[in-house]
Amino acid sequence: MATQYSDLEKAINTLVTNFHSASPDNRPTLKVDEFKNLLSSQLPTLVKVKPLLFIPTDTNDSKLLLLTSCDCTSVVIVFKHFWSLIQNLATTQHGLLSHEKLSKCTCLLL
Amino acid sequence: MATQYSDLEKAINTLVTNFHSASPDNRPTLKVDEFKNLLSSQLPTLVKVKPLLFIPTDTNDSKLLLLTSCDCTSVVIVFKHFWSLIQNLATTQHGLLSHEKLSKCTCLLL
Repeated sequence: MATQYSDLEKAINTLVTNFHSASPDNRPTLKVDEFKNLLSSQLPTLVKVKPLLFIPTDTNDSKLLLLTSCDCTSVVIVFKHFWSLIQNLATTQHGLLSHEKLSKCTCLLL
Repeated sequence: MATQYSDLEKAINTLVTNFHSASPDNRPTLKVDEFKNLLSSQLPTLVKVKPLLFIPTDTNDSKLLLLTSCDCTSVVIVFKHFWSLIQNLATTQHGLLSHEKLSKCTCLLL
């Protein structure tokens, strides 16, 4: 019998395989153009609203990546960069959900 | 027309809503029992293989949480704890996929 995966496991798998399948030959890293294509197709709203991303080129340096016009052929996107972005989106969504919950509170700030 | 979400957006949503819906009243934090129930139902393999989790109670202190028998009623699980776990799993899976790719290499280590 095939293994049954939970929704959470499937979601993790979707995130990882999306990154992998964004390169034509399933490389573990992406070129900037491949990363931009991934974001344009999978996170279109983000690209419109926040077209700027910080891509750290090493531990002490950061490079500002303008998704809409960047031509940084030397930059390599690793899974950690992608994951930082996903984490940012998930944390924001969690905050919004928590805020929705809080906004239902009937307490008053005096 | 209803908004169409991409697979990646749906996956992020699944992760966030799973955490939220693990508490009976959709609180932004979880009690240990609620967190254990979430992991048992959504990540059953993990609970069997790695029943230990480090739950930082503050920035300078860590608490070892034994998922199968912990009775730490004072510990509050925040989204950051949950996300650390998801990140760990995703990074491991990415590593495994990259390794699969590398293992197909015909190079020999001399």
